[in-house]
Amino acid sequence: MLLEKTTRMNFLFDFYQALLTDKQRSYMQLYYLDDLSLGEIGESYEVSRQAVYDNIRRTEAMLEEYEDKLQLFQKFKNRQEITNKLLSCLNDEQSSKEDLIPLIELLKQE
Amino acid sequence: MLLEKTTRMNFLFDFYQALLTDKQRSYMQLYYLDDLSLGEIGESYEVSRQAVYDNIRRTEAMLEEYEDKLQLFQKFKNRQEITNKLLSCLNDEQSSKEDLIPLIELLKQE
Repeated sequence: MLLEKTTRMNFLFDFYQALLTDKQRSYMQLYYLDDLSLGEIGESYEVSRQAVYDNIRRTEAMLEEYEDKLQLFQKFKNRQEITNKLLSCLNDEQSSKEDLIPLIELLKQE
Repeated sequence: MLLEKTTRMNFLFDFYQALLTDKQRSYMQLYYLDDLSLGEIGESYEVSRQAVYDNIRRTEAMLEEYEDKLQLFQKFKNRQEITNKLLSCLNDEQSSKEDLIPLIELLKQE
């Protein structure tokens, strides 16, 4: 599994898991957070490896669809970028309190 | 219509409208943003006042359910509160740049 995809799925799962069914949530948790194989998940739920695979693929597509619509992960990344700029501005001896205001105004809009 | 409810519905609509159907979105927009009456909306869609009413009530319930699950409005209010504190801290001659750090750390977690 590509690390980049795993990281993205972990974030999307974090943001949208409340919109999933219990079963979707369990499979995603076991696969992405607990790093179980499809076969292992199938065994513990007494379903085929293929059934687990299909369920997880559908859930991933749902998470991407929610992200298309609500952009919670993207907005989170935008806010993180601004707060990091704020913090480095605070650590910079050269910068004044006034330099922070446009960054905070930007945050209010996110 | 109570002002408090209208304001809340406007916010919830803003956060979750991407998850509604086109028809739900149109009715909500005409009722809450354009301030049309149920009768007027019914006329322009050639449906009964009651049909519009039922659709809007169901949509309101859906929006509240999304808010229960995702808390986007609540989290937005929390962030606004912190950014407002940040701004008043910046306007306060007594406060130093260091006083801002805990507030920014708090923002990162929201």
